[in-house]
Amino acid sequence: MSEIRALNGVLEAAVYVDDLDSARRFYGDLLGLEEIMAVEGRHVFFRCGTTIVLCFIAEATRRPTQSETLPVPPHGAEGPGHICFSADGATLDGWIQRLEDGGVEIEADFNWPNGARSVYVRDPAGNSVEFAEPRLWESAA
Amino acid sequence: MSEIRALNGVLEAAVYVDDLDSARRFYGDLLGLEEIMAVEGRHVFFRCGTTIVLCFIAEATRRPTQSETLPVPPHGAEGPGHICFSADGATLDGWIQRLEDGGVEIEADFNWPNGARSVYVRDPAGNSVEFAEPRLWESAA
Repeated sequence: MSEIRALNGVLEAAVYVDDLDSARRFYGDLLGLEEIMAVEGRHVFFRCGTTIVLCFIAEATRRPTQSETLPVPPHGAEGPGHICFSADGATLDGWIQRLEDGGVEIEADFNWPNGARSVYVRDPAGNSVEFAEPRLWESAA
Repeated sequence: MSEIRALNGVLEAAVYVDDLDSARRFYGDLLGLEEIMAVEGRHVFFRCGTTIVLCFIAEATRRPTQSETLPVPPHGAEGPGHICFSADGATLDGWIQRLEDGGVEIEADFNWPNGARSVYVRDPAGNSVEFAEPRLWESAA
């Protein structure tokens, strides 16, 4: 009988994008994430710490796969999703500068009741992308 | 001038769900994630390692917030999203058993070219939920 242990963490988080080159410019060039894999017209994946950020074109991922050996189930959402990156508080002003220099508008910038700061922008597809201090969740009620 | 360092990781990954009690039964009771916060009718959040899994009701999160101090930007996607949890290979048979005992059908179960195994199910809202060995991404091409 196989043992069950607590899940280790989130290995992949997904957003849906309109085109991969815009996703590369935002998640790769601007945010500095390492691109690790791409299939043109379908997806581009980036590494961020221990998690992989999956940028999918929903129109492509909704099609059932034809592969018998890799029967990846279809998925694909429409409309703005959300992802949040962990950033040290001391770096948030620098990130804001970098984002604004890259032509990205800061949509919101505030402190939560526990003091943690969050900064929100939109990726080129309109997803809500947050940068937050990890202490936001250190003592969640 | 604030310093920029590489982003630490993914602090929050989001899925959109139909109702919070079904999300609790799946992500909380079945997957064993710790519920850390909920606003009835809007969201329930779970902790998984260093990442928070956000289950949102899109109809609620698409409404602009009325809060001046916490102006959280709206978002909300429709259709099946995707999230993947990191699970040790030795636990995957146990997870399959637990999922099936909980009435959840295994949609796919295969090994990637690098040998890592992935198991896929659907959450109650139809999101594609994967359990994968973290070595899947250890030497991505």
